[in-house]
Amino acid sequence: MPRNDKPLRTDIGWSDAGSITLFGKDFPKEILGRLNLGDMGFLELTARVPNERESRMFNAMVVALVEHGITPSALVARLTYLGAPESLQGAVAAGLNGLGTVFVGSIEGSAKMLADALPKPDPAIELAPLAERIVASFQSPPRIIPGIGHPVHKPVDPRTPRLFELARETGFDGPYVRLIQAVSEAASRQLGKRLPVNATGAIGALCCEMGFDWKICRGLGVMARAVGLVGHILEETRRPMAPEIWQSIEARATEHFRDGESSSD
Amino acid sequence: MPRNDKPLRTDIGWSDAGSITLFGKDFPKEILGRLNLGDMGFLELTARVPNERESRMFNAMVVALVEHGITPSALVARLTYLGAPESLQGAVAAGLNGLGTVFVGSIEGSAKMLADALPKPDPAIELAPLAERIVASFQSPPRIIPGIGHPVHKPVDPRTPRLFELARETGFDGPYVRLIQAVSEAASRQLGKRLPVNATGAIGALCCEMGFDWKICRGLGVMARAVGLVGHILEETRRPMAPEIWQSIEARATEHFRDGESSSD
Amino acid sequence: MPRNDKPLRTDIGWSDAGSITLFGKDFPKEILGRLNLGDMGFLELTARVPNERESRMFNAMVVALVEHGITPSALVARLTYLGAPESLQGAVAAGLNGLGTVFVGSIEGSAKMLADALPKPDPAIELAPLAERIVASFQSPPRIIPGIGHPVHKPVDPRTPRLFELARETGFDGPYVRLIQAVSEAASRQLGKRLPVNATGAIGALCCEMGFDWKICRGLGVMARAVGLVGHILEETRRPMAPEIWQSIEARATEHFRDGESSSD
Amino acid sequence: MPRNDKPLRTDIGWSDAGSITLFGKDFPKEILGRLNLGDMGFLELTARVPNERESRMFNAMVVALVEHGITPSALVARLTYLGAPESLQGAVAAGLNGLGTVFVGSIEGSAKMLADALPKPDPAIELAPLAERIVASFQSPPRIIPGIGHPVHKPVDPRTPRLFELARETGFDGPYVRLIQAVSEAASRQLGKRLPVNATGAIGALCCEMGFDWKICRGLGVMARAVGLVGHILEETRRPMAPEIWQSIEARATEHFRDGESSSD
Repeated sequence: MPRNDKPLRTDIGWSDAGSITLFGKDFPKEILGRLNLGDMGFLELTARVPNERESRMFNAMVVALVEHGITPSALVARLTYLGAPESLQGAVAAGLNGLGTVFVGSIEGSAKMLADALPKPDPAIELAPLAERIVASFQSPPRIIPGIGHPVHKPVDPRTPRLFELARETGFDGPYVRLIQAVSEAASRQLGKRLPVNATGAIGALCCEMGFDWKICRGLGVMARAVGLVGHILEETRRPMAPEIWQSIEARATEHFRDGESSSD
Repeated sequence: MPRNDKPLRTDIGWSDAGSITLFGKDFPKEILGRLNLGDMGFLELTARVPNERESRMFNAMVVALVEHGITPSALVARLTYLGAPESLQGAVAAGLNGLGTVFVGSIEGSAKMLADALPKPDPAIELAPLAERIVASFQSPPRIIPGIGHPVHKPVDPRTPRLFELARETGFDGPYVRLIQAVSEAASRQLGKRLPVNATGAIGALCCEMGFDWKICRGLGVMARAVGLVGHILEETRRPMAPEIWQSIEARATEHFRDGESSSD
Repeated sequence: MPRNDKPLRTDIGWSDAGSITLFGKDFPKEILGRLNLGDMGFLELTARVPNERESRMFNAMVVALVEHGITPSALVARLTYLGAPESLQGAVAAGLNGLGTVFVGSIEGSAKMLADALPKPDPAIELAPLAERIVASFQSPPRIIPGIGHPVHKPVDPRTPRLFELARETGFDGPYVRLIQAVSEAASRQLGKRLPVNATGAIGALCCEMGFDWKICRGLGVMARAVGLVGHILEETRRPMAPEIWQSIEARATEHFRDGESSSD
Repeated sequence: MPRNDKPLRTDIGWSDAGSITLFGKDFPKEILGRLNLGDMGFLELTARVPNERESRMFNAMVVALVEHGITPSALVARLTYLGAPESLQGAVAAGLNGLGTVFVGSIEGSAKMLADALPKPDPAIELAPLAERIVASFQSPPRIIPGIGHPVHKPVDPRTPRLFELARETGFDGPYVRLIQAVSEAASRQLGKRLPVNATGAIGALCCEMGFDWKICRGLGVMARAVGLVGHILEETRRPMAPEIWQSIEARATEHFRDGESSSD
């Protein structure tokens, strides 16, 4: 008895011999040469071309996530390229695998926290007590509040004020941006230390302002960081760091074995 | 005896408590809100901000590679997300792993072919005989000429004339663009069938015009396709295709076992 | 001011010009030719060589996870290899990325559930009421109980009775094996349908019997499936499925576009 | 006009409600508890159960590749786990991505070199002059001869004599094993330095003895290293190295920026 196929359907697009249609548009004529790469990302997430305000804000959100120097994911891409230089795509893929709950994926955590707390951006809701409740909900058991605090950038993550400045200029400084700021203030007070909004917190709030589903917000970091990792691999082709990273870490981590070796002489 | 560390150095950037410096620029002030995502990619590859012509051409080159509907890499991202929805980054990484020599990575092949043939873009070199020699070099043994022909887009890849139109508008229609066109003509004549320049051939030529090392050209496709794969995962969260793909392919590929089962009754 | 390095240390092993020492053993002499691949996996997880009972049980646990025919991860490996045949490792890596919370990673879920419920395998604890409480804890809100039920294998996952038979033969049929069986019975009663222990539930319980930390249990599935995916890629090199998978799914998923095209003629 | 599906077929196996059949065998009864993990790998590559000699040799070949302490792929797995501890499978996948032409993938290079030189293991062929020609073919232009020499293990890779000892014991010390040894001798003479057979060279030769297609030989390294990477992630959960690796490398690689900063005070 043959199986009955269930329907399969994509609305992203299709192509035939002479045409490529994406999101209802003639790709070569209406998209190519008209949209920049960030706009194309916005189109992927919303199925429509951004207006000028949206283009400016969305491009800033993803550009903020492209590059942060020597990060674990940059090290991963470089060390992978050392072993498989024939597969640049594999080195970028390896680097992206680390964008999980701890690093860039924390955009998702802050977007979910804000969207759960404020399912509809109702102007009548008082944000300060809501923020206090959010922070309290992370105290038992104590968990890290997503989007707040940074191990290096103190007292302020320099990307955050700039992103919020752009939000004001483009009209995206709505209730979610105010709520993450209120969460930062409530957390700083309740925990007795400065816990400013970090870049992934700011971007999580801006994702909510733009109406993105929290489940996809980690994707902004993933698309952005792919761009940066190509830059790291380019530098690695010119001035390799991976062999020395490997050998110096190997030497440090196995020194205790080698010490034993000497002392047994 | 302790090991002597060798120098390690990145020129991409660094950060401290209050600042992030990338490619010699104050990231929040000079980059964020000023560069779009494609410009940021150009900055990663050249360590300088593109001018307006460069920005337009480079953004078109990467936008051309973001999305092509239901591709193998889109299927991979969707099928991976089915098993590990907690790891959107892993689904994108899996999808990128397939951008090798056969698909998007063919940008590298065409860029290398053109750069090897024309190490310096000398205007005195006649391109037609050079193109004939290039095509001939791929005949014994017969190998696919990178950047030429397309299984679906016939007789013309609709992205190519648009990319070359933009190249004229931005002044990037130089000797490498003319050489890939001459290769297409020579190949069509020598092999007796229309073999037009495809999108990855056009982009490979434009990479040479921009001075990119062929070793990094595959990276344009990788950074671009990461953007598109996020769009596929978003659609997958809303209208999943992966379970039906799995089950219908499994049924088709194991039908011969099941037939045997019935006939043994 | 130079940074003070913190200590780095691995206890797995090290090598020099003439020797390789792993887990305190001379690798060529004491491991190579003496341990099979599963034993080597046990050594990685426990830092000791398994005895005969452990070897038999552990090898069965991982062998159970190597292969299950046309799974999503097998499809992913095949579709990735189509685009990047130069990178077999990338195709396997892509396939492994899907072993998350939904499929093979569910070993982790069942091991955690059992270890949390029974931190110490105290023989005085009555398992039936404990199992009822575990099942009840998954009802509000209703969540899938890990390790119980299977979409295809009904009423019994054929791997489970065989794994439990081996557990009896090797002496690993302890309290965690009994607890997962009690959970299955409690769930079947509370939910009014047969929910037998599936293979990942059985393996999760056996991981607890062996004292493995739940955080690493997903690793058994990952190491096992890497073996199976190589087999799928081998078959793909001989009789490719990926091009037809791609093209037939693309045709089905974009049929609605093409219908519109025809009807407009 | 609907598309005509082309046939899809796997011979690996299938399952239904009550049974799992793999390679023509009842998986729970005939495989589970009878084959070890290496035997299961042999079954995947040959579609038959190994005899005792094959089991011993094949298990040694893969065990040889499981673990080599702090390698680039181990560092990659650890650094990836730091950012995405929810996705152990992603950390292993990232680590495997680096098993390319430079490291473990070199098995493929040596297997291809030997299989190309000796398509049929004809006992009448004299191996010494054949080896001289192989080595000469790598001199213009000079390329690395796969499977020969090792950066650390000098003058002998300690795994090689043990693997060849096992080959003698199991009857796999045939013409390919002799040819790789002849290549080592010819290379040492022609290049004027000791270039012994390394582990991947020995395993590449043994793959030829077993009749494996060179295109799949890299797969032995991939399946083996997946086992080892799980061990590294386990150690990383107990005594993390990744944060210190990241921070110390970041400090070293950006020191020149920080120096500039101090000197400008």
